[in-house]
Formats: sequence, C-alpha cells, structure tokens
Amino acid sequence: MTLPIHNKYFGNTPKDVWSLINETAAAAEQETGKKVINLGQGFFSYSPPEFAIKAAQEALLDPMANQYSHTKGRPVLLNSLSKYYSKKFNRNVPIDEILVTAGANEGMLTAFTGFLNPGDEVIVFEPFFDQYISNIEMPGGKVVYVPLHPPESFKDKTIDGSDWKIDYDQLEKAITKKTKMIVVNTPQNPVGKVFTEEELTKIGNLAVKYNIIILSDEVYENLYYGDNFPRFATLTPEIAKQTITVGSAGKSFAATGWRIGWLIADPYYIKYCGLAHTRICFTTNSPLQVAVSKAIDYASNSDYFEKTRSEFKKKYEIFTKVFDDLGLPYTRAEGSYYILVNFNKVKIPSDYKFPEELSDKAKDFKAAYWLIREIGVVAIPPTEFYIKEHEHVAEDCLRFAVCKEDCVLEQAVERLKKLAEYL
Amino acid sequence: MTLPIHNKYFGNTPKDVWSLINETAAAAEQETGKKVINLGQGFFSYSPPEFAIKAAQEALLDPMANQYSHTKGRPVLLNSLSKYYSKKFNRNVPIDEILVTAGANEGMLTAFTGFLNPGDEVIVFEPFFDQYISNIEMPGGKVVYVPLHPPESFKDKTIDGSDWKIDYDQLEKAITKKTKMIVVNTPQNPVGKVFTEEELTKIGNLAVKYNIIILSDEVYENLYYGDNFPRFATLTPEIAKQTITVGSAGKSFAATGWRIGWLIADPYYIKYCGLAHTRICFTTNSPLQVAVSKAIDYASNSDYFEKTRSEFKKKYEIFTKVFDDLGLPYTRAEGSYYILVNFNKVKIPSDYKFPEELSDKAKDFKAAYWLIREIGVVAIPPTEFYIKEHEHVAEDCLRFAVCKEDCVLEQAVERLKKLAEYL
Repeated sequence: MTLPIHNKYFGNTPKDVWSLINETAAAAEQETGKKVINLGQGFFSYSPPEFAIKAAQEALLDPMANQYSHTKGRPVLLNSLSKYYSKKFNRNVPIDEILVTAGANEGMLTAFTGFLNPGDEVIVFEPFFDQYISNIEMPGGKVVYVPLHPPESFKDKTIDGSDWKIDYDQLEKAITKKTKMIVVNTPQNPVGKVFTEEELTKIGNLAVKYNIIILSDEVYENLYYGDNFPRFATLTPEIAKQTITVGSAGKSFAATGWRIGWLIADPYYIKYCGLAHTRICFTTNSPLQVAVSKAIDYASNSDYFEKTRSEFKKKYEIFTKVFDDLGLPYTRAEGSYYILVNFNKVKIPSDYKFPEELSDKAKDFKAAYWLIREIGVVAIPPTEFYIKEHEHVAEDCLRFAVCKEDCVLEQAVERLKKLAEYL
Repeated sequence: MTLPIHNKYFGNTPKDVWSLINETAAAAEQETGKKVINLGQGFFSYSPPEFAIKAAQEALLDPMANQYSHTKGRPVLLNSLSKYYSKKFNRNVPIDEILVTAGANEGMLTAFTGFLNPGDEVIVFEPFFDQYISNIEMPGGKVVYVPLHPPESFKDKTIDGSDWKIDYDQLEKAITKKTKMIVVNTPQNPVGKVFTEEELTKIGNLAVKYNIIILSDEVYENLYYGDNFPRFATLTPEIAKQTITVGSAGKSFAATGWRIGWLIADPYYIKYCGLAHTRICFTTNSPLQVAVSKAIDYASNSDYFEKTRSEFKKKYEIFTKVFDDLGLPYTRAEGSYYILVNFNKVKIPSDYKFPEELSDKAKDFKAAYWLIREIGVVAIPPTEFYIKEHEHVAEDCLRFAVCKEDCVLEQAVERLKKLAEYL
C-alpha cells in the first residue's frame, strides 16, 4: 500500500534554517559537553515583565476568560488596542479597525488569505522574514522580490540601517497589473533598519498610485533606537487607508510564546481578514488576550517601553564592542533586536569539514556551522532570507539576536574574542 | 479609488450561524431587558478544573514557558500525550506520532493543508461541524457529502444516537479516484452519536480498500456515556495506520479558550501536517501547553474523566426531562455535550414576524429566532450543518449545548415548560 500523497507544495521543502541550526547546536553540545550560547532564534532569554505575568495569572481565575473569545478578539483587548493605537496614530482607531490574531504570523497569513486570489503578486523586500513566502504562496500568491541595497563599503566598515537603500525605479518596475500587496517590515528583521518617513512616503505613494495594499509588519514597533518611529498609518490619509498594520504582544512584552498578535486597518480590510482568521484558527487563546490587554494599559501609563528601549541600547553596546575591537563591520541597528555582522574578514580554515546537508548552501551557512562548533555561539545565516540569485548580497553576514540577558551577551562576547585568531 | 478586491472565496459568505444567533440573542436582551439563557455555542459556563488553572499559573512563572515552543509542540506536552495515548491505544505512541496545534480546529486545517492538492475530494458526513467545509475548500479540496440517516420515527419518538445510520452503498458510491480523505466525528456534533466499533470498522475497511486517509475528529473523546469509546486507532493495524486522530484540551478540560489541540498519526502524516502547521501559525501558545501537560498527567492518575462523564449524564437528565414531559422527541446523546431536539410539534404562530435575513433560511432558523425572543433560550439551528438539498432532514430540530452549570440548565427547563402553550 503506498501512502496517500501529501500536498505537493511541501514536497521539496529543504530543512528550514531554524531546525538546521538548532540541530547543529544540539549536536555540538552533545559532542563537546559544552553549552553553546544561543543568539540564533529571536526569543527572549528572560521572563515577560511581572505586570504581564500577574495579569495572566489573574485572568485565569475568571471562568469566562478560559472559554472561546469572539473570533475578532476579546472586547477588553480590542478596547486597549483602540486606546493605544489612537494615541500612536493620532486619530481615533475604533475597534472595527482591529482584529486579534493567534500571533502576528497567523495575522500575516490571515491578511494574505483574506486578499489574495490565485496569481496575485506580492512584493517583498530582500532580506525577508522567511514565513512571508509560504504565507503568500499557500493562498495562491506569487512573490516578487525587490532587494534592499547595502553600500559597497559594508565589506570594510560599519554602516547604519538607513544605508540599506531602495531603488525606487526597480521597485516601480516590479509592479504589474497583478500586484495586490507589498510587504514592508519596519523595524526590519534581519537588517535592523527603521524605514524613514521619506522612504515610507515614496513606497506609500507608489502603493496608492497602483492601488496596492501595504502590509506593514511592525512587530518591533516598540524597539526603535532613534528619536521616533515613522509608520505608514500616520502618513497621508490615502496611504493610511491602504495600510494593514501588524502588531505583536510577543515582541512588545518579551512573550514570544503567548501567540497574541493583531491587525489594524480600514474596516473593509478587517472584514475579510476576519473571515479568513475565523476559518484558519477560529479564535485566539483567551486568558493571554486578557493579560495583554492589561499589559498594554499598564505600559501605556508607565515608562515601560522607554525603559525597554534603553535596556536594548545597552544590550547592543555590550554586544557590538567585540566587533568594533576585532574590526568586523556590522549594520548598526536602528530598531528590532537583531544585528547583521559582516564576517568576510574571518578566515575559516579551508580544510574544515562541513556536513553534506550544507553542500549546496551559501558561505554564511558554513560560517554559522563553524561558529557554533568552534566558538560556541549560535547565529543565523541570512541568505535564508534571500532567493538563490541574490544570496551574494548577504553571504558574508551572520545575524545575531540580542534579546538575551546582559550576562549572556557578555559571555558571548568573551567567546567571540577568539575570532581574533582567525583574522 | 476602488478598494482592492478580497479573496473571492469569501465573496458571498452569508452571515455565519454563530454571529447570527449571538446577535439575535443580544438584540432580544437589549429590547426586553431580560437575560436569555445561552445553550447555543458549545462553551462551558464554568471554569476549567482547579488543577488545570493552578498548572497554568505556575507555568507562567517559568521564563522559558513564555517563549516560543518548538513548532511540533513542547516536549513536556508531547511526553504527556505519548503516555496518555499509549494507554488509550494499547500500544506505544512515540512523540514523532504527535503534533500539537493551536486548537483542534487549526489541527484539522493543518491536516487538510498537509495532504490536499487542488481537486482532491474529502468525504464528510452530514450533519457536519461547519468549519470542516472551509478548512477543506481553502487548500483547494472539494467536499463530497454523505448523509447520516435518522429513522422516520424521529418525528414522533425519542431515538438513540446509534439510530442515525450510514448507508454503506451510498458511502462507497461517493468514493472516486480523487477521494483523498474522509472525516468522521465521534462523538458526533450535533447528533451526539458515538460510532460503534462495527461502523468504524466498515468505514475503516473502505478507507483501506481505497487508500483514503481517515481524519477522526475525536475532540469529545472523554465525553461518552456508554461503556466504552471505540476508535479507528485501535481497530486493525491497517485502519490505524491510515488514521489521523484529532484531540482537544479545550473539550477535555472545560477550557475552550485555551486553543490547544493535537493530531496523532503515523510519522509520515505528522511530518506533512507539521510542515503545514509551521507555515499556518508557526507554533502554539507555550504556557497553556505546559498547563495541559500537567492536566493530562493529573487526570490520567485520578478519576477526573469518569467524574466529568457522571456530571454530564446528570446534566442530560436535568435537561431532557422537560422534553419527555412535553412529548418532544430528541436524540439521546451517546457522547459530546449536545442534544438534538425535534420541535416539529411546536406550533409557532403563523403571523410571527421574522427578520429579512432569515427569509431564505430553513424552518429551524425561524424556530431558533422565536425561541430566543419568546422563551428566552438560545439554541443552534442544525440545518447550518447540511447542504441546501439535505436541509429537510434536520429542519425540525434545534441543537442545545448542555456544557453549562446545572442551575443554568434548570433555569432553561423552567422557561422551556412554557412550550406547552404552543403544542
């Protein structure tokens, strides 16, 4: 008896970068008996704030906070989000412009599923968050890739996130009659770029001109390190009208395992995203929705987000010093909790043995493998966030996550000092 | 500027039954100032057990239980499920046969998405749980409907769940070369039927003969009221091999808002379901996974499930007495927490005013509307769980949910006594 054939979409899926890197890390620990320091996946190495944990514990005591929520979200959370975004967007954001989702990831799938018809095209900037691709393709969409361009000088010197530029002619040429959506991630993973108001306005005007929905993935909205955080939703009314903003409790409250996200958009968009969300997972977990509602209220009335930003600036200071000292260039993060470091000066021994499954991968996969085994630090190879033809842009780089306790970053720095032997 | 067109699949979606009935109930309360008793949607009117709440509160104190879980599920929950199902299935169920999902609903979508290619057919028994349909159609599947047949006598007298019969010739004729899956829900919503071992074996042998995947939705597995609960997974090895079993913490622990479900199947099936799950919502919320793990361990080592079953038998006794007294026939539930009552003897005044949106709906929608407004009790019209051509089978019935505190059921009974005036 042959087994029934699976969905062909999943037929030739290579091992995803997360599994590959995690398995390499686990094997290295097993073989050496020494713990690696995991700066790979972007989870926090510490607890959500006490006020959020307390709110969750309390929510569990309300019998109805353990039962189904309305598919659009619990009123208590919708109201908190309405208040929060009304302040951020400088206008009234009523609850019919909000949809609570089972994490921002399911929120993105919900938006694509609500609006894509087979053959519709979606523009995505490279480097991209890998989930976008399948989330677009599963409802029948086609991804059109437009690269962000780092300066040539990145090989030699540290640059800013804003030095990664958009070629607007290239962007406009990528637009066809089938272009339905454009995805913008700001603050951007993995570059750490915060798009400027000028950049967002130029992209937004193109979106308005060609009637394209802007899906603005702003899950790191509270982790920017400049003076302010520009958003599509606060630009011209025309741009705001076409924008679906994506938010995440996981990123804002150090709770990546809570799986509470949301979409903010015109009621027309929320309606169809809501229909998709209902059919994808019906509703989002209830007790943590109540907790997030209280956490947002608390954070809005305190300096929680400001303090978090200060803490993250310090984390970057702790972590980047070693690269400054070694003379390894990186992109200074303007937001998010990632940093892209250029390893092109690091000489990995030419006779180093790599496993078979890395043979067709770009240089950065090999660097990540070597770094785990020889230095004991886990990073993510960013060519995973490029299509094959454009891998060369990032093949010298590795992405580190700094959403870890300071002492973890300090330990990582100690280990990374050993790189001096390989320069 | 015209708004970008939404996914056409959601184009002509009529208002779903849940929104329609909830809005009718809210309007009735507003207009009369009197609370309705909601026996519509299947949420519990009370808290999950204390051991589960305590486990969730404790889990929140572990920093890492608030961060991403592995996309397949947290090891601690996989291990608890492995132990639990090894006992239930009478064989070792290793963790690579288990996938944790964001509720059983997302689990079903995950299974369909993992295995359906466009044009593949899926057999579904009527009446069906409404989410199946979109969950099959969204990944490109086509639903083939096969009705369960109640006896003619149901118009006059109370019957058993097992009196709803399968016509096996009809079932076999529904199978084509494109049939990829068959969905069986046992205990069945809304009938309350528990499929017998003989029925499951006949269905299972057909599935083996035609190489069809059995998706066995067993979310009410702990709510059966006979001596035992037959499952596909414990029949012949061939049938077990083709079965994906669906389970739900929400139904087993009175926690419909926790959104923790799972699939149990051969590693081949789990692999592709896992790939789909990763791309649908990446991972399931973490703290409640830890809580469910502890709840399963606790329940397995105590009489929790037995006690729950006794409590539900009592709930049915409380609730059905009024229908016995009135002479309204119903289907005695062998499992689940629903009951299907035949209202064909209830004479709704012929000049009663119904809203426009019910004009093209079957009789049961009007009965539900009338019952909410005149009796103050909410029930669900079961023709929502049929295609138009087969609505007549259930148009005399209403579905009530008994997963409510005894005092709520007693109040409902008091109100339902008023039906005597309309017989």
